[in-house]
Amino acid sequence: MRAVDLINKKREGLPMTDDEIRFLVSGFVDGSVPDYQMSAWMMAVCLRGMTHHEIAALTNAMACSGAMVDLSDLSGIKVDKHSTGGVGDTTTLVSAPIAAACGVTVAKMSGRGLGHTGGTLDKLEAIPGVNIERSVDEMIEIVKKTGLCVIGQSSGLDPADKLMYALRDVTGTVKSIPLIASSIMSKKIAAGADAIVLDVKTGSGAFMETLERARELAATMVNIGEKLGRRTVALITDMNCPLGRAVGNGLEVADAVYVLRGEVKRGDPLRDVCVLISAYMLMLGGAAKNIGEAKNAAERAIASGAALNKLREMVEALGGNGSFIDEPEKLTRVKRIYELKSRAAGHVRSINALDIGVASAMLGAGRAKKSDKIDPAVGIVLKKRVGEYVGANELLALMYVNDDTSLEESSALALKAFEIGEKPTFVPPMVYETVTAENAACDLESACAPIL
Amino acid sequence: MRAVDLINKKREGLPMTDDEIRFLVSGFVDGSVPDYQMSAWMMAVCLRGMTHHEIAALTNAMACSGAMVDLSDLSGIKVDKHSTGGVGDTTTLVSAPIAAACGVTVAKMSGRGLGHTGGTLDKLEAIPGVNIERSVDEMIEIVKKTGLCVIGQSSGLDPADKLMYALRDVTGTVKSIPLIASSIMSKKIAAGADAIVLDVKTGSGAFMETLERARELAATMVNIGEKLGRRTVALITDMNCPLGRAVGNGLEVADAVYVLRGEVKRGDPLRDVCVLISAYMLMLGGAAKNIGEAKNAAERAIASGAALNKLREMVEALGGNGSFIDEPEKLTRVKRIYELKSRAAGHVRSINALDIGVASAMLGAGRAKKSDKIDPAVGIVLKKRVGEYVGANELLALMYVNDDTSLEESSALALKAFEIGEKPTFVPPMVYETVTAENAACDLESACAPIL
Repeated sequence: MRAVDLINKKREGLPMTDDEIRFLVSGFVDGSVPDYQMSAWMMAVCLRGMTHHEIAALTNAMACSGAMVDLSDLSGIKVDKHSTGGVGDTTTLVSAPIAAACGVTVAKMSGRGLGHTGGTLDKLEAIPGVNIERSVDEMIEIVKKTGLCVIGQSSGLDPADKLMYALRDVTGTVKSIPLIASSIMSKKIAAGADAIVLDVKTGSGAFMETLERARELAATMVNIGEKLGRRTVALITDMNCPLGRAVGNGLEVADAVYVLRGEVKRGDPLRDVCVLISAYMLMLGGAAKNIGEAKNAAERAIASGAALNKLREMVEALGGNGSFIDEPEKLTRVKRIYELKSRAAGHVRSINALDIGVASAMLGAGRAKKSDKIDPAVGIVLKKRVGEYVGANELLALMYVNDDTSLEESSALALKAFEIGEKPTFVPPMVYETVTAENAACDLESACAPIL
Repeated sequence: MRAVDLINKKREGLPMTDDEIRFLVSGFVDGSVPDYQMSAWMMAVCLRGMTHHEIAALTNAMACSGAMVDLSDLSGIKVDKHSTGGVGDTTTLVSAPIAAACGVTVAKMSGRGLGHTGGTLDKLEAIPGVNIERSVDEMIEIVKKTGLCVIGQSSGLDPADKLMYALRDVTGTVKSIPLIASSIMSKKIAAGADAIVLDVKTGSGAFMETLERARELAATMVNIGEKLGRRTVALITDMNCPLGRAVGNGLEVADAVYVLRGEVKRGDPLRDVCVLISAYMLMLGGAAKNIGEAKNAAERAIASGAALNKLREMVEALGGNGSFIDEPEKLTRVKRIYELKSRAAGHVRSINALDIGVASAMLGAGRAKKSDKIDPAVGIVLKKRVGEYVGANELLALMYVNDDTSLEESSALALKAFEIGEKPTFVPPMVYETVTAENAACDLESACAPIL
């Protein structure tokens, strides 16, 4: 087999066999397929697409390219969740404890934030003492005790994804549904999940800017999961506006705690999305028969304090100081809280998630590049949400600041994020669709059509 | 400017500016744009195409990427010719001497053969003493004396093309009209041509297998020439069957001599194509007003022996022994001449050029890889052409052999190349079309549409 023939095949839009895909992926990892061949092939994938069958084969080849986590020591169905990334999107810290409190086993690896999006690891590390750099064995031990553990991804996992992602980043091959879907799903499969709940974000602050693309990514990932024997459900949720009120690491931990304490009412976007995600985790994990039963169980886990206890247990098992879960305000002590006020009176018609994410990163809450350090205490807390009325000179948001250097630029961007209009606006739902194996476009015809 | 943004632009099918194209090409040559970015960009070009304007900018950037030959010391219009490569295609050795004999200045760099196609340099080197590795200054001195010189391409010329071609070869990006056209034309422009006659081959033995693709390549190259101020004409000629009767290096020199001696009648494919190519060289070189006048001048140069004298002068100026031009049979002395005979009686319906080219290469006349040595004396001489009748056990071809090892395989392939049928066949013309600036699809609409 020669890589150039496989590139030619994909350039001509012909489907590749499982063996051919495995040859390319394993060759790329062992160095026998050079990066210039892989980048040409990935560009051909961008422009010619892949069938669902090919994408599943690619995902499997990537997942098998390195070590694979063995969670068989843990009883029950191990359910993972994944968000495609957003702003104020602290769903793992809420939904994983709820699921664990309802008896679902959650042994999960998470990532860090980059650009305008946050990452669960950075949020956990905002809690003093927490160490997320744990071995798989340590994770399993923690899960045996608490039913729940979130750690950083092991370095030996899915090397194909690391290499392919780095190459995609510099070769204009990032925006390809087959490559995005296989990147996400191969990591989940390598990390040992039996079942996966996906939260696909769509809107101005999300990677998938249109609902159509989000729907395609969701259906593609659900198809991969089913083809590789992992029950998978995908929610498509809004990321035009930040999901939670808080954007920043310690601030988002506090926001998660407020939800788990039962202090946040139904109808709040973060709360509603987290309850739905945990409900699907319960269903896939065999802890509920239908979505109504699952949601009720999730609500009870909040009301009883059981979910909050799970979060505290996990934080302490990771070496963290549990008192910060009881007094999360201690995580957000900063030199200065700047009040962002509205210039005009009117209705909040939108809050641009990308702008808020970038403004928060400017304060030190995020990274422009992987090696940047972050400040766990800083960020932005929204005081008005979409659909609310704001008076002139009324508070829009609080900006938590330790270093004034970028405040002027950051606050200008945050102010620009708020679109204030004369007329009220329709507030769209936070959850657009739920994609399951049954309703995903997984019939044979669609499974053979190339996906771009 | 960042290469990744330019790759993204092309992936999305957007046209690039001249500066952007120059940035990529010069960056690739100086190493600041790595090969994995160039291969991704070239794959995007394969699948998204380029406009005529972009292709001209690419050609210019490539031509300017290294040294450029300065022929200003030579008076008159310097006319080059180029064939896209075929079997029994010894047009340079016939048409360049004709053009020079008619007063056109021909200072030309040629290439070697690879695979089933021959190269002018290998044919010239079949003549004892000829040394084609000459400096540009030496070439100019020879042209001042004889009006004609063909040498090997200088190593410093068009480094972008060398690097891009090597990368295309291993990244599935060979079959792209913009990349093929810019590769050919950038070399011609770097080599100092004022005007260019192109012979675009089409058919089973050619790189452009269909007339449609050949027409597109021809029009694209004519457009490039006009946009960059080089008058350009392209003939589209047949390469389903070998052009000349002889296939092999010394054998093709002999074939060229027979044409230049006037021993080959009008209607012979090689003779007709060569006269037409030289006639266009005369027109572009200002030595004739119209094609009729140009053809008559070419015929006179054959009849008078002036063209043959030009070939001999050049061979001698390159250090070669001129007696081999007068007795070309001395070039083809081999250990054995094998008679390839027809098994059945019937009409020759086709002679597959690719098969004959490969069969000849097997005997030692061609190379599988660049480092292979060739035997100048061996090859195949066709004794029947398409449309002729052959009796059972009658001679189809003579195979000139020095090493018997591959004869069995080679003769089987050569026999397979002849399609013998009961019914006579229509013999198509050798020249399908002539593409000039006037009839090339160079109106604005077509110039803006991407060419794949």
